[in-house]
Amino acid sequence: MTATREIHLAARPDGWPTAANFAVVDRELPAPADGQVLVRNVFMSVDPYMRPRMNDVKSYVPPFQVGEALDGGAVGEVLESRVDGLAPGDLVVHRLGWREHAVVDRPRKLEPLAGVSPSHYLGVLGTTGLTAYVGLLDIAGFRPGDAVFVSGAAGAVGSVAGQIARLRGASRVIGSAGSAEKVALLRDKLGFDAAFDYRDGHLYRQLTAAAPEGIDVYFDNVGGEHLEAAIGVLNDHGRVALCGSISAYNDAEPKPGPKNLGLAVGKRLSLRGFIVTDHAARTRDMIREVGGWLADGQLVAEETVVDGGLDAAVDAFLGMLRGENTGKMVVRF
Amino acid sequence: MTATREIHLAARPDGWPTAANFAVVDRELPAPADGQVLVRNVFMSVDPYMRPRMNDVKSYVPPFQVGEALDGGAVGEVLESRVDGLAPGDLVVHRLGWREHAVVDRPRKLEPLAGVSPSHYLGVLGTTGLTAYVGLLDIAGFRPGDAVFVSGAAGAVGSVAGQIARLRGASRVIGSAGSAEKVALLRDKLGFDAAFDYRDGHLYRQLTAAAPEGIDVYFDNVGGEHLEAAIGVLNDHGRVALCGSISAYNDAEPKPGPKNLGLAVGKRLSLRGFIVTDHAARTRDMIREVGGWLADGQLVAEETVVDGGLDAAVDAFLGMLRGENTGKMVVRF
Repeated sequence: MTATREIHLAARPDGWPTAANFAVVDRELPAPADGQVLVRNVFMSVDPYMRPRMNDVKSYVPPFQVGEALDGGAVGEVLESRVDGLAPGDLVVHRLGWREHAVVDRPRKLEPLAGVSPSHYLGVLGTTGLTAYVGLLDIAGFRPGDAVFVSGAAGAVGSVAGQIARLRGASRVIGSAGSAEKVALLRDKLGFDAAFDYRDGHLYRQLTAAAPEGIDVYFDNVGGEHLEAAIGVLNDHGRVALCGSISAYNDAEPKPGPKNLGLAVGKRLSLRGFIVTDHAARTRDMIREVGGWLADGQLVAEETVVDGGLDAAVDAFLGMLRGENTGKMVVRF
Repeated sequence: MTATREIHLAARPDGWPTAANFAVVDRELPAPADGQVLVRNVFMSVDPYMRPRMNDVKSYVPPFQVGEALDGGAVGEVLESRVDGLAPGDLVVHRLGWREHAVVDRPRKLEPLAGVSPSHYLGVLGTTGLTAYVGLLDIAGFRPGDAVFVSGAAGAVGSVAGQIARLRGASRVIGSAGSAEKVALLRDKLGFDAAFDYRDGHLYRQLTAAAPEGIDVYFDNVGGEHLEAAIGVLNDHGRVALCGSISAYNDAEPKPGPKNLGLAVGKRLSLRGFIVTDHAARTRDMIREVGGWLADGQLVAEETVVDGGLDAAVDAFLGMLRGENTGKMVVRF
């Protein structure tokens, strides 16, 4: 038996969650059975999609259950192995985040590229990177020469999506973000052609100024007013990848949708929602291409690492929902 | 010179148009030049898309101009020809409706299938039929076995779209319409599996009852609340063809969009707008397939023919906007 701690959903939030919605719980883990490993987590992921899972709503991922541990992406170091090819000290990527130790079924061994932090396999080379890659290339059907707008562009997915667009030959890459510092990051470090702070207001006017010739692709991480502004600015045959709507995740009541959606007819727009787990077959392509850019320094893996392990996880998650991260946020144990 | 009459846009409407927005104007036509024919119109089309053209808004078709004649689909009988292969008495399809006579450039000769009224080349075998065909098959990517919901299903495009779905092997075809008589038409004459009157209210509840296993395709002629209800009922990987939003054409201010659009992510929905004129290359396929069904009686070409020629055209158009037609509305001269 291994004594450990994990974080449970204590109560469902109504609107913005607080620390009171979570509880740290002591637990004893059994020894791993055949096909399992016991790991000590070294990194765990906090992601926007975890917020809707706190509601009691059926969705593409099952909701978290009150009184049970949360879960999510994590990197663990093997302490004890009942799997051929995995030995103590090896790293594995798995889904049992939000806990200090875990017994993992069918663990996936992690062999990081030289010089690449294992945490990036929760980010740019993991689900985050695959979301950006599939959303831009397969869902929005990006083509070289397209002008691309990414909302939430300083976030985990957005920061990668914008860079893929640039590296694949976009005519112009525009990002929105929620602070002057993030806007500077987009322009100065991530190579966006234009960026603006949506909290300054006048979203439509700012987007029009940043995209004087319109946009061809909109990568939507935000929903709400951002989507409405993008519909207004999209060129004919424009394409929208609907990736998420963090602006709405904490709304107790749904907000109205874009009042200009009727423009989709005359402009021949397409809007497509997607879930990255449907596209796992593209992981190899993504790692080859994005990993190559990462290795030769063309792509920046922007990351916010929070130290403090399990005791820091709830604050990290709440901070991420408030936009306190740049790039991918992970908790280091 | 030929003395004739035509209908001009007298003033742009604000909200619902009235007879005061139109004027009947006398005019003298020149003799046709080389490559032209002089025709006497025998049918003209009144269509929903003409309403947004009355506004001074740039769109995929240029707006009508105040003080100038309207235009639209028409069938004319040749009176005088300067085109090889066209002789007096021949029929042509052209774009100069809203007038009693017209001098037509590059006229397209009409050779109706046996037993098919020439008016159907403004409807089921014309732009209307092509809109239904392309929207269902190419834009929504209909597949046999799909459950299909069509709004405005007793209208020109909707009545054809629903029947194509049935004849192509839909598992279930559901239609909404604006009166009990139209609902009966859908069920009893056009072969819809289920239909309801949206004016009874509780759109979402009615749609859920009509589609207990959800829908896979939504053919949207209406927009507004219909689109919101459909998004709620669409199954995973559902597809929406955005064809028009007649519910909004007379709004002075745009209404909010669907507040559940965020569901498009988890359900992996796609929504695509389209304009039929981009898809003229499909006309031959459509006429072969739909014409075949029409000839052997499997498809009903529902039509509302208004007699009275030019003097009846404005009332016919206004009546169509109020939903007084079933199927395609044409004016007979």
